[in-house]
Amino acid sequence: MRVKKKEKLNETKLIGEIEKISLITQKFNKSLIIKSIGDDCAIFRDKNSMLISADNITENVHFTLDFYSFYEIGSKSLLVNLSDIAAMGGVPRLFTLSLFIPEYINEENIKETLYGIVDIAKKYRVSLIGGNISRASEFSVSITIIGDYKDNNVIKRGNSKIGDAVFISGEIGNSWMSYYLQKQKKRNDKNYTNLTNFKKKYIENFINKFKLPIPRIKLAEELAAKKLANSLTDISDGLYKDISNILSFPHGAEIWIDELPINENLKRIAGLLKIKKYMDNIISFGEDYELLWTTDDKNEGELLNLSNRLGIRIKKIGRVVKEINWTKFMKNGIEYPIKDATFRHL
Amino acid sequence: MRVKKKEKLNETKLIGEIEKISLITQKFNKSLIIKSIGDDCAIFRDKNSMLISADNITENVHFTLDFYSFYEIGSKSLLVNLSDIAAMGGVPRLFTLSLFIPEYINEENIKETLYGIVDIAKKYRVSLIGGNISRASEFSVSITIIGDYKDNNVIKRGNSKIGDAVFISGEIGNSWMSYYLQKQKKRNDKNYTNLTNFKKKYIENFINKFKLPIPRIKLAEELAAKKLANSLTDISDGLYKDISNILSFPHGAEIWIDELPINENLKRIAGLLKIKKYMDNIISFGEDYELLWTTDDKNEGELLNLSNRLGIRIKKIGRVVKEINWTKFMKNGIEYPIKDATFRHL
Repeated sequence: MRVKKKEKLNETKLIGEIEKISLITQKFNKSLIIKSIGDDCAIFRDKNSMLISADNITENVHFTLDFYSFYEIGSKSLLVNLSDIAAMGGVPRLFTLSLFIPEYINEENIKETLYGIVDIAKKYRVSLIGGNISRASEFSVSITIIGDYKDNNVIKRGNSKIGDAVFISGEIGNSWMSYYLQKQKKRNDKNYTNLTNFKKKYIENFINKFKLPIPRIKLAEELAAKKLANSLTDISDGLYKDISNILSFPHGAEIWIDELPINENLKRIAGLLKIKKYMDNIISFGEDYELLWTTDDKNEGELLNLSNRLGIRIKKIGRVVKEINWTKFMKNGIEYPIKDATFRHL
Repeated sequence: MRVKKKEKLNETKLIGEIEKISLITQKFNKSLIIKSIGDDCAIFRDKNSMLISADNITENVHFTLDFYSFYEIGSKSLLVNLSDIAAMGGVPRLFTLSLFIPEYINEENIKETLYGIVDIAKKYRVSLIGGNISRASEFSVSITIIGDYKDNNVIKRGNSKIGDAVFISGEIGNSWMSYYLQKQKKRNDKNYTNLTNFKKKYIENFINKFKLPIPRIKLAEELAAKKLANSLTDISDGLYKDISNILSFPHGAEIWIDELPINENLKRIAGLLKIKKYMDNIISFGEDYELLWTTDDKNEGELLNLSNRLGIRIKKIGRVVKEINWTKFMKNGIEYPIKDATFRHL
C-alpha cells in the first residue's frame, strides 16, 4: 500500500548523492567490497569474524532540530554506531544508511546531513555500501554497521571476574550537562540570564564541545589486542544501567563516586548555575559513549601507558564484588542512593 | 538529547520477546552465528560472499493500520527484505530488526508484529541476530538482511545482452488491485456497494490473497546456479521502473503488453467494477515482488521445466533491443503510452 504525494525532493538526485558517498568511502575497505550501492543488495566478503549492530537517531527522541544542525545529526548517527563496534573492540568497516524524511526537510538539509555522515566516515575509514530512503512524519537516520576483528580480539559483555577493577575512559556527564544547559537557556532560567556575557559564552562553548560523542575505537582495539579487558561496553544508557551489562551474573560492583572522572568546567558551571544534585544525572543520563570495562588490577600500569600514548584519560572507578547482583554507588564508604533517571527507549 | 516520557511498554519484556525470536531462529544458521542478541553487537562469520540490503515498511507510507494487521505488518517487513536477496539469487541468512514504536501501539500489537516476523523467519530459515527499539510518532519496521552465495552464483542488474528475452515470474498487478479494491471499499464507490454479497466476498478474497508478497527465493537460487539469467531484479517499484534497472546501458527493451501475466480474477473484478484503464497501474504500481530477468532464448526450455518443477508461472514478456535506452511497451506492434504512476519514495 502506497500513499502518493507531490514530490518535494528530487529522489534521483538524492540517490546520486548517496552513491557519491559510497564511491568516496569504498576505498577504505576495498578488499571487502565486491559491489556497492546500485543493485538490489551490496556484495561483500570478510575472512574475519564480523560484528553487526543497528542504531538510529530520531527527531524528538534523540535530537531536536533547534539544538542539532543537520550536519551534526548526520555525524552523530554514524558516531553512535561506531561506538557499538568500539564497545566490542572491533574495527568498523561497512555501513548501510536508511533515511526517513518528513515533508519539511529540504534538499539542503539532507545534503548537510550527508556531509556530516561522510566526514565521520572518512575520519574512521568506514564505507557506505547500502542506502534506502523513505518518507516519514519525523526525521530519522538509521544505520546498520559491520565491523570485524582478527585472532579472537573481541571483548564481550558479562565476562567480569570477582575482584576486577572497573575502568572508564574519558569523562562522564558531559553529554548530560550539554543537554541540560541547552534546555536551561531555552527556559530563560534566572540563574542563566543573570550571567555576564563572558560566562554565557563559556557555557556556550561547553554545550558545543560535548554535543557529539567520540567513539573510542583505537582504545578499544588496543584493549582487545592486549587483553586488557575481561568485559567491555560503551556508556550509551548511563553508567547506572550499563555497569550491570558488563557484570557476569550474579556479580555485583562497587562504584566510587569520588573517583568518577568529571570535567572541571562541568563542576564550575554547576556552581555558576547553582545546580545542586547533579551526580544522579551524571550517573544515569548516558550518551557519553565512553568505554566501561573490568580487568585485573595487574593491568593498571599498562592501561596508564596506553592512556598516555593515546592521550585518553583512563580512570579506575570501582571493583567487581561477589554476589551482590547489583551495583552500589559508594561515597566515603557509605552507599549513595541514586535517583534512577535512565533513558527509556519506550 | 533525550525526551523522557512516561513508560507505556515494558522495555525489558519487549527485548525479552526479541531475544526469544533470536533464540528460536538461530538454529537455521548455526554455523554462521558466533553470538546473537545480548551484547553491543552480534558476531557472525561467513566464508562465502555476502549480500546485504536494508528496507523498511512505515505506517502511512507502505501500510495503514486499517488495512494491515500487525501480524501482516511483521510478515511483510521481512518478506520485502527476503525479496531483495532473491533479486540477486542469494540465500537469505541473518537479519537485524529495528522497531520504531509510537505511543498508540501497545504490547499486544508488538507481539503480533513479532509473530508475523518469526513465522516468516521460520519459513525461510533466516535468523534474527540484532535488535533495536526506539520511540517514534509513527510505526515502522526496519530490517537489514544478510544473505550469501557460493561459487559466483549471483545475478546482478544491468547485465543484459542484446537480443535477450525478458522473463517474469508469477503475475503482475495483483498487489495494485488488492490495494485499489481496499480503497474502493472505503470510498463506498457505487460500483462496489451495488454488488451482491457473493461478489463482495469474491473481492474480499482477492484483497486478502494478495496483501503479502511471496519472495521468489528458490526460483532465484536456481536461476543463479543454472546460469539462467544475465540480469535480474525484483519488481518492487513497478515494471515500468524496474525494467530499466536490469538493462545494460544503453540497451532498451520492448515489453509486449498482451503477454503480461495477469490474474484472471483481476480481470473479472475490473469488469465487475467497470475499471477501464488498469494496465498503466499494473505496469507502474509495483509491490508485486516478482522476479524480472533477461536471458538467452535458448534457456526457454529449461525455464519451463523449472516453472513446472517449482509450480511458479514463468512468462516471456519482451526482448532486449539495441540502443533505445528506454523501454517501449508494445500492443499489436504499436507503442502503447504508459501513464507513469511509479511510486516515489519521497
